[in-house]
Order: sequence, then C-alpha cells, then structure tokens
Amino acid sequence: MAGFISFVSAGPGDPDLLTLKAVDRLRRADVVLFDDLASGPVLGHAGPGAELIAVGKRAGRPSAKQDHVNALLVEHGLAGRRVVRLKSGDAGIFGRLEEELEAVNAAGLGHEIIPGVTSASAAAAAAEIPLTRRMTARRVQFVTGADVTGGLPGDVNWAALADPAATTVVFMGQRTFARLAEGLLSHGLPGDTPALLATAVGHPEQALLRSTVAGLAQRLAGTAPEHPALILYGPLAD
Amino acid sequence: MAGFISFVSAGPGDPDLLTLKAVDRLRRADVVLFDDLASGPVLGHAGPGAELIAVGKRAGRPSAKQDHVNALLVEHGLAGRRVVRLKSGDAGIFGRLEEELEAVNAAGLGHEIIPGVTSASAAAAAAEIPLTRRMTARRVQFVTGADVTGGLPGDVNWAALADPAATTVVFMGQRTFARLAEGLLSHGLPGDTPALLATAVGHPEQALLRSTVAGLAQRLAGTAPEHPALILYGPLAD
Repeated sequence: MAGFISFVSAGPGDPDLLTLKAVDRLRRADVVLFDDLASGPVLGHAGPGAELIAVGKRAGRPSAKQDHVNALLVEHGLAGRRVVRLKSGDAGIFGRLEEELEAVNAAGLGHEIIPGVTSASAAAAAAEIPLTRRMTARRVQFVTGADVTGGLPGDVNWAALADPAATTVVFMGQRTFARLAEGLLSHGLPGDTPALLATAVGHPEQALLRSTVAGLAQRLAGTAPEHPALILYGPLAD
Repeated sequence: MAGFISFVSAGPGDPDLLTLKAVDRLRRADVVLFDDLASGPVLGHAGPGAELIAVGKRAGRPSAKQDHVNALLVEHGLAGRRVVRLKSGDAGIFGRLEEELEAVNAAGLGHEIIPGVTSASAAAAAAEIPLTRRMTARRVQFVTGADVTGGLPGDVNWAALADPAATTVVFMGQRTFARLAEGLLSHGLPGDTPALLATAVGHPEQALLRSTVAGLAQRLAGTAPEHPALILYGPLAD
C-alpha cells in the first residue's frame, strides 16, 4: 500500500502558530522531514514513534540537496508511510514546493498541501503593521532578495518594487539589501521610506528594528547575518 | 481594570486552519466581534459564556459601519472584558486592521495581533499551486480589485500587475476583473496567462475554476457574484 505525503506549513516558528490541521498531521506522521527553520518546539507535536529527519537547506550552510529531499519523500511514500514534509512559514511561499510536488506527482503518490502562517504575516503582526491599508497600501508583495546563486535576482521589476504605495516584504534579503536599496532609490523610492528588519521571526530571539530604506541599507552593507530575517518597507508608519 | 483586545486571524473559514493561539484566545474570550466570513464553525471554539456579536461588512450588504466596529471594540475593552476581534484570513491583509488598531491605541487599550492563514495561501494550496516558483515566479503580490466605492482602484500599478513573472492574487475582484483584465492585456500581459477563480475558499462550497486571464474576464463580465472569491493569475501551470 502506498503512503501519503502531507506538505505541512509549520508557520514562522512559534509552535502556537501551527494550525490545528498541522498538529493533527504531525501527531499521525510515521516520518517527518523538516527544515532548519521548521524545527525545535514545532517538532514536539510529532508522536513518540515518528522518525524525524533533518533536511535543512539554510543558505550558506552545508545542506542536503533538493534532489535528495525529493528522493527521500518518494522513498518513504512508496514504503507506505504517512510522511509529513514540514516547511517553514507557508509552504507555497519561497518553500521550493514546486520541485517537491513534481517529484511526488511523478511517483504517483497521494498528497495534500496544508497552508500556514507566512512569516511575513507574523513579522507584520509582531510589529503591529497592517500589510495593507485602505488608502495608502492597496498592494502587498513578497519578493526574494536572493536567486539560486545567492545574489540579487537579475530580473527585478523595479516599477513594482520601487512603488511607495505598496508594502514590500523581502525574504532572504539581508546580504543583498544594500544593492536592492540602491536600485530602489534610483527608481524613485524615497530613501526615508519606512523599513523594518525583523530577525528570527516567531523564535525566542525575535528582534524588530525600525529604520528607513536608506538607513537599513547602510546598516546591512557588508554584514554577515546571524539569523534569518525579513525586511519590510513601504507605508509602514501610522 | 481595562480589558484587552486580541485581533485574531480566523484563517480562510475551515476551522482546522485556525492556529492554536487563535483557539486559545477564542476559548478565553468574554466577547467575540466577528465578520460574516469569520463565522460558522470557527465560532464553535468560543466558550459557552462568550458573547458573540456579528459586525459583518461584506461588500454590497447592509452592514455595520467601520466606526461602529471601532466603538464596540473600545466600549467592551474599557468595560474590562477580554475581547476577540475575529477577522477572516490574515488580519493584516485587506482586513481594515489599520482603522481598528488606531481606535484601540487612541483608547489606550492593551492589545495583540495574532497572524493567521491568508485565504490566498489556502486557495493556492487547494489548487496545488505554489505561490512562488524558483525560476518563474520570484514575486507574489496581493491586490484588491475594489476601492472604497467598489470600483477598480484608480491608482493601479500596471507594470507590477501585468508582470508575467509574478503570481498575483486579486481579493474582492470578481465585479471588476473584466476591466482589470482589459488593462492587463493592454499593458502586455498575454491573454492566455493561466488564471484561477477560487470561490468560497475554506468553506464547504469551495470551488476552483481553472481558466486564463482572458477567459475569466469573459466569464465574469456582467455577473453578480454569489460567494466571495479570489482570482489568481500568473505562472500557475506546472
């Protein structure tokens, strides 16, 4: 009998931000494949008999390759096990869901996707920032600050990103933000646009730093990030 | 003793997509102020002694005004009650959070914001569509199809919205999608760009219709929506 793969969104890290459905799937899992960021107390919801396998891919660390993760998913699924693929934040947002779905589909394995709380929503909630505002922010966008090589993506839509009437959340953007900000300012975004650096969102060491786009660019230039962080900018102030 | 306001994200409607933290706050609430979309089984998590007050504002229906909701929040908070303001989806995304936060801040009431699953993530998960893709969709954006008058907002950023390399989710956009699509096509988005109409996301009557931007525009022109829906377009196909 073939197994079943549940792609489970773990939320930002705070185990109380798991959904009831995520908790249920963790409890019933035979095996849990988890990322670095979807670990710690979140894994406490797995049953005592569940096999827990780390498949972390944090940028800049030695890590399992994507095809290895795909192979593990298929192997455990074909072995008839209830597999939870635990992904940090919402599985569909910067989570490499596409590649893993393809592998599971190709193997003909039954599966489901359980949506969750994106760390963008968690960072905004912690900072009491509405991601949209009725008059001043009718658009919110999530972008990545790093392509597969770790550099700023070459295909940035500057008209979209330099728009002062949108709230923008940059994922994986600490290393490239100085360069991103340079482009934003040259495309007309005011340097004093409010910005927020939200570090280790949903974890005990969470920190929020309010600044501006220009100020944050200066602060982050040349630094090596200790923790993952999100950068928000746009009409963030009251 | 002053009360406390918890802005609680109810998720898309499926009560199993509530977070553990949302369930906890509902259980301990003295009073729950809820929207049309954050009702039904979700409210089953409130304790038997909780007062449940509907403050629905669904577009096109007779509804409580925003200032009435603000006044209720402040009144119950100042009366020393534990107030849950239950908002559908994620409270920070198209939830009028800004206005209510301002009212609660002005009254000096303690408060917290509990992030949740946005219906955009839930619709994408149900349709097995990753909102981002490593090579083809490095940006995802949420926009509203209706301004305060119910019409298409006048300040659409066409370069952002007609970008074939982003996944776009349109909230409250059924009535205006034909006009939006006209603008998108005139700004270069191919008419055969994949699109999805996701109706009543997270509710028992949920329906998913796969089409294209041009096809959906034709289908929605002149129709009066029965249920709320999201429209997704962009690189949605495998």
